[in-house]
Amino acid sequence: MEIKAFRWESGKLLLLDQRKLPEVEEWVVLEDHLQTAQAIKDMMVRGAPAIGCVAAYGFLMGVRKGEDPKVVYETLKNTRPTAYNLFYALNRMMEAYQRGEDLEATARAIEEEDYLANRKMAKIGNELIPKNARILTHCNTGALATAGHGTALGVIREAHYSNKSIFVWVDETRPYLQGSRLTAWELSKENIPHKIITDSTAGFLMKKGFVDCVIVGADRITKRGDVANKIGTYALSVLAKVHGIPFYVVAPSSTIDPNIESGEDIPIEERFEEEVKAFKNCQFAPKESPALHLAFDITPAENITAIITEKGIWKPS
Amino acid sequence: MEIKAFRWESGKLLLLDQRKLPEVEEWVVLEDHLQTAQAIKDMMVRGAPAIGCVAAYGFLMGVRKGEDPKVVYETLKNTRPTAYNLFYALNRMMEAYQRGEDLEATARAIEEEDYLANRKMAKIGNELIPKNARILTHCNTGALATAGHGTALGVIREAHYSNKSIFVWVDETRPYLQGSRLTAWELSKENIPHKIITDSTAGFLMKKGFVDCVIVGADRITKRGDVANKIGTYALSVLAKVHGIPFYVVAPSSTIDPNIESGEDIPIEERFEEEVKAFKNCQFAPKESPALHLAFDITPAENITAIITEKGIWKPS
Repeated sequence: MEIKAFRWESGKLLLLDQRKLPEVEEWVVLEDHLQTAQAIKDMMVRGAPAIGCVAAYGFLMGVRKGEDPKVVYETLKNTRPTAYNLFYALNRMMEAYQRGEDLEATARAIEEEDYLANRKMAKIGNELIPKNARILTHCNTGALATAGHGTALGVIREAHYSNKSIFVWVDETRPYLQGSRLTAWELSKENIPHKIITDSTAGFLMKKGFVDCVIVGADRITKRGDVANKIGTYALSVLAKVHGIPFYVVAPSSTIDPNIESGEDIPIEERFEEEVKAFKNCQFAPKESPALHLAFDITPAENITAIITEKGIWKPS
Repeated sequence: MEIKAFRWESGKLLLLDQRKLPEVEEWVVLEDHLQTAQAIKDMMVRGAPAIGCVAAYGFLMGVRKGEDPKVVYETLKNTRPTAYNLFYALNRMMEAYQRGEDLEATARAIEEEDYLANRKMAKIGNELIPKNARILTHCNTGALATAGHGTALGVIREAHYSNKSIFVWVDETRPYLQGSRLTAWELSKENIPHKIITDSTAGFLMKKGFVDCVIVGADRITKRGDVANKIGTYALSVLAKVHGIPFYVVAPSSTIDPNIESGEDIPIEERFEEEVKAFKNCQFAPKESPALHLAFDITPAENITAIITEKGIWKPS
């Protein structure tokens, strides 16, 4: 059965609690926009396209409860600052509300369009993947990060099912470990060959000739093609460039912010220090030591070989 | 009181169990070469110079117990393959044995020389550190990794105590977290300003102009100046080069392998997958997913601005 991060059922949103993966598969029921906003903030759901879809349903539930649509919009908007899909989805919902359109149909359309965009990007991106490719990916960009199938991981799935005998290097992706917890979980479920590595191993594997391409997702893309994505993406792009390895970004067009030219203008979320200093009940840093937790970084267009959207292949550099 | 990783007392070796830091400071008593070999293998003690010193005392204890010196030598030698100081120390002990010299005096001399080398490197290295420098370091190269004071962290200590108002970015250093567990612990104890970051954050901080130099230690240095060090060092060297940031290696001359020209010939230790997939009782990867755990990588001489030993500043590139 296809992996899903969320399901809209009988007027409620069911959400897979991704903080508990891969150990426990627990579904949570969200009944209004406040619960939805908290779930996004707490990273119960993450991944830019998935956040967008979930926020759309959150908006629907809030307005259905008779709340002021402006308040509902703001509450959901102020959960996380970087992923553009969140604002894209909320803007569409607000416009639908203002035009008196069917909000449930709009939220369902946002989900469906994201899923179809992923299927399309997977086909387009797969054309760029050679046989026997050893693909390095960062964070989780799979079914769990989207309405299904995935962006970068969707391309990897497509390459695998078209019998290209690919192999995936999975960056564990500290501090939240979306790579080892979520991407490895998705790949394991479908028996796609892979190995987990620590993030700092990627550069040396490139140097040794063990990486044929890098594929990542995006949280926001500017008009000139600068990309905000999970912290560590920028370093991978530099390392790929130095080693002559193609660096691909895969994201639906709903990730493109039409108001921003340069990556310098994308707000970068700074999260809690504790997420760097501990994992669950394991403390591994002195209490007195401060930590910096940037959740994202910016990769300039110059470092990107191609951006794949559902509309085609874009070479910003 | 000065931080120590080990103490030779009344014919026994006391060892601080570094696996339990920073939460618990527990000292273990080692009484022979077998216990010493196991402690090195299990990373109860780590850091190339500290491993060398501890192995020297292990050799002494083994021979004192009447064991065949060749067997003692081999047992200690086969614990970890990359750090040259281990072989340097064992070779010195074996030569002392063959010449009928005092083994305890030799082991004490190895420890004392390492400590004095660190004090000297700290002074030499400090000349390269500008005022207000924001220094990025990787892994732990402090008192815990040596006979005291430290190599790269020794330079950082010296710069701090010469009132240069430095600040330290501490790479957490996955998977073993020597940065957040050990380096941050040493810096906290002495109130040296620092922040812990995930390893993948370093590149973006360089890009943003927040890093003035990178200082790391070494596990083995070849004749041409290639450096084996903790996994992630190679990527840092590439990122530093691309951003025009000086990249310094600090290590005693006992780290230099006179038999090897190129870094390609240094054996790189591959450790247990489980050390990547879990930390203490926290599992964070699916059981079915394999992981690759390379403990070290090789940084070519071309990427190194200078190597600082107790003999002076060496510019291999």
